[in-house]
Amino acid sequence: MKPILMQFDTDALPSSFDRVVAVDAGVEQLFSYGNVNGENVTGLVHGAIFTRGPADLKHTAIFIGGSNVLEGERLLNKVTKTFFGPMRVSVMMDSNGCNTTAAAAVAIAKKHMKLEGASAIVLGATGPVGQRVSELLALEKAEVTLVSRTLDRAESTRDAIRARFPDARINRSSASTPEETEAACSGHQLVFAAGAAGICFLTEGSLARIEGLKLAVDLNAVPPVGIADISPMDKATDKSGVICYGALGVGGLKMKVHKQAIRSLFANNDQVLETQPIYELALQVAGL
Amino acid sequence: MKPILMQFDTDALPSSFDRVVAVDAGVEQLFSYGNVNGENVTGLVHGAIFTRGPADLKHTAIFIGGSNVLEGERLLNKVTKTFFGPMRVSVMMDSNGCNTTAAAAVAIAKKHMKLEGASAIVLGATGPVGQRVSELLALEKAEVTLVSRTLDRAESTRDAIRARFPDARINRSSASTPEETEAACSGHQLVFAAGAAGICFLTEGSLARIEGLKLAVDLNAVPPVGIADISPMDKATDKSGVICYGALGVGGLKMKVHKQAIRSLFANNDQVLETQPIYELALQVAGL
Amino acid sequence: MKPILMQFDTDALPSSFDRVVAVDAGVEQLFSYGNVNGENVTGLVHGAIFTRGPADLKHTAIFIGGSNVLEGERLLNKVTKTFFGPMRVSVMMDSNGCNTTAAAAVAIAKKHMKLEGASAIVLGATGPVGQRVSELLALEKAEVTLVSRTLDRAESTRDAIRARFPDARINRSSASTPEETEAACSGHQLVFAAGAAGICFLTEGSLARIEGLKLAVDLNAVPPVGIADISPMDKATDKSGVICYGALGVGGLKMKVHKQAIRSLFANNDQVLETQPIYELALQVAGL
Repeated sequence: MKPILMQFDTDALPSSFDRVVAVDAGVEQLFSYGNVNGENVTGLVHGAIFTRGPADLKHTAIFIGGSNVLEGERLLNKVTKTFFGPMRVSVMMDSNGCNTTAAAAVAIAKKHMKLEGASAIVLGATGPVGQRVSELLALEKAEVTLVSRTLDRAESTRDAIRARFPDARINRSSASTPEETEAACSGHQLVFAAGAAGICFLTEGSLARIEGLKLAVDLNAVPPVGIADISPMDKATDKSGVICYGALGVGGLKMKVHKQAIRSLFANNDQVLETQPIYELALQVAGL
Repeated sequence: MKPILMQFDTDALPSSFDRVVAVDAGVEQLFSYGNVNGENVTGLVHGAIFTRGPADLKHTAIFIGGSNVLEGERLLNKVTKTFFGPMRVSVMMDSNGCNTTAAAAVAIAKKHMKLEGASAIVLGATGPVGQRVSELLALEKAEVTLVSRTLDRAESTRDAIRARFPDARINRSSASTPEETEAACSGHQLVFAAGAAGICFLTEGSLARIEGLKLAVDLNAVPPVGIADISPMDKATDKSGVICYGALGVGGLKMKVHKQAIRSLFANNDQVLETQPIYELALQVAGL
Repeated sequence: MKPILMQFDTDALPSSFDRVVAVDAGVEQLFSYGNVNGENVTGLVHGAIFTRGPADLKHTAIFIGGSNVLEGERLLNKVTKTFFGPMRVSVMMDSNGCNTTAAAAVAIAKKHMKLEGASAIVLGATGPVGQRVSELLALEKAEVTLVSRTLDRAESTRDAIRARFPDARINRSSASTPEETEAACSGHQLVFAAGAAGICFLTEGSLARIEGLKLAVDLNAVPPVGIADISPMDKATDKSGVICYGALGVGGLKMKVHKQAIRSLFANNDQVLETQPIYELALQVAGL
């Protein structure tokens, strides 16, 4: 029985990026759908679960993608609610690469230093990738400071993380200028920049000035980057004593994690690969 | 030369159900199109008939599907009219599973009893599946009673069947409540329920009360079912002396017929697999 | 690493014709997109160039098609502008079959006679195929006369060809009736008809009356054909001493060229297969 991956994309044209990765992960039969939403997804899921016998459902899987992470989360929720009893297939959600990117970034940090008890600060913490990086740092028992333009905006992210990890040590900090951001970073060992394209959090020379900083990861590949001292190609590059990673430097591991996640969907029919399971895969792929 | 199946679906998103079945029938290259209609189908058909030499056209075939059976019928008509001379490919129409479902239901009935001369009643006879069940029962020379809410509505179905089988013994009956329906069923050996989702034709206990009833098939899988005594999983289940089939009980044969029909499309380039040819396949698959 | 062809089609439904040809050229993984335009194509191209390492980018390629040649040209321009440095894949443009048709037509003419210095006239020279036929004749150093309804309309075509071939000998001629067209053809050795469907340039008996004519190619397959003396199936057919080709007579070579062009996309990652490179392929395929 041939493995089938159904790609449910919330954009009009299903991501060609996700399609290439699926093929390179060994998928032969890829059913790509664009404009998938909460209404039309039910019939697609029925087609996934009602066509093969329960013992063969592990040969069918679903990938949820698209540029809008919130829509992807809603779609994942709808898809899993359509399943019942043994009538389910494994599903992965990685809209805009949010889960594989966050997982790769935190796994890379763990490769360089002990995260438990470490002091980490996340810039752009309220965005989809920033939230996920923060959640994974909390999972690793780091002390996480969420930075956003106003304290209010960081609250829902903090609450969401605390709902999963009641003991998580989460701080909030507001910063609306590079100067304020640099001040907020002082004393932290790790900084992650996960802002939207076009937002520069830390200007040139910041890394050398932030006290105690050991590792900096900038997940924005499009200029201007989020941390001016980091270039997208940086990969464990030492800059003023700080280990630096740019978006493409993280990208190699991210791609491996994405492919491994696709492959593992077909191991059985009841997986839901979102942030944490994908992080577990990232640790395996990174040899941790 | 690789076999290619072109899926023309009248819905916006081409059915994932039909795609899985096509792959499981051995199709490697499946071209799935959504939103196909009488206007844009011509170019698609030209792409099917003008790309390979006449001797190789049997390696290309068309599957017409979608939730709207009437639109599917119109599309089939347009597709076959676009063919000319040897420039044609085999085509199958099974919008909403109408043909494979009706074929499987009647083949199952034939497995249990002689249909020629038998007295059968079809509830929801004016819908797409009900019409097809009635037509196949007429083909088998059963005496068929078409039930609908008003006598008028059953007339076009009766006329359509008589156009094909002038000697067919077709009765009409109207019933708008479970009580009237139960009364109409009295004395019939076979009852088929082919209504839309949500319509309950016969309430609990009906099967035991209908005089002379031997076999009952309910083709609705979504609760409430069409015959309250039958559950979707029933498969030759004896209930008060009546052999009962639910939608999923018919589903196993239906799926086999669907796959066999897809495979047989590639035997030559001039088949039109609709109700009766698909029924012939169902009899073969059922070993009849 | 599996070869992937991404089909970017400017029509809503990606051409089934181009899909079959791609499969018959050996493509296993074909990503077909409809409604592709200058805005949404950027993300699709990024998915092509950012997923595989530079050394493997030759295993991914892009095909641009659709019924509107001008939109296809704009899309090709946008696609190639999205590439940068080594981040590129090979791309072919053949909207409405314009390039493969023109290439096959001129290659066939070259098979029969020396084109250098020959006198050729192109009817419908301002349309997409006519422009390309004219350009390839200029490349072969034929003396080309462009015919359109008014002299003005032929000017941009002439200027475009002269921009590429400053020494090209290009004449313009206007003709709005079959009589004027026949008169314009007098003395030319080759005539190509490349008009839109429904336009008849030369009425019955014209070929016998045109002085000095040796070869006539009509690229319109839909009746009424462009040259009434030629039928679509004509393939090197002698009519009144003129070698005649109809659209289907050219079609065999056209299909071979199309397939060969698709195959050659995967030789490396920096080809742009438009009019002239496709003509070079046509000469190879024709054994010239």
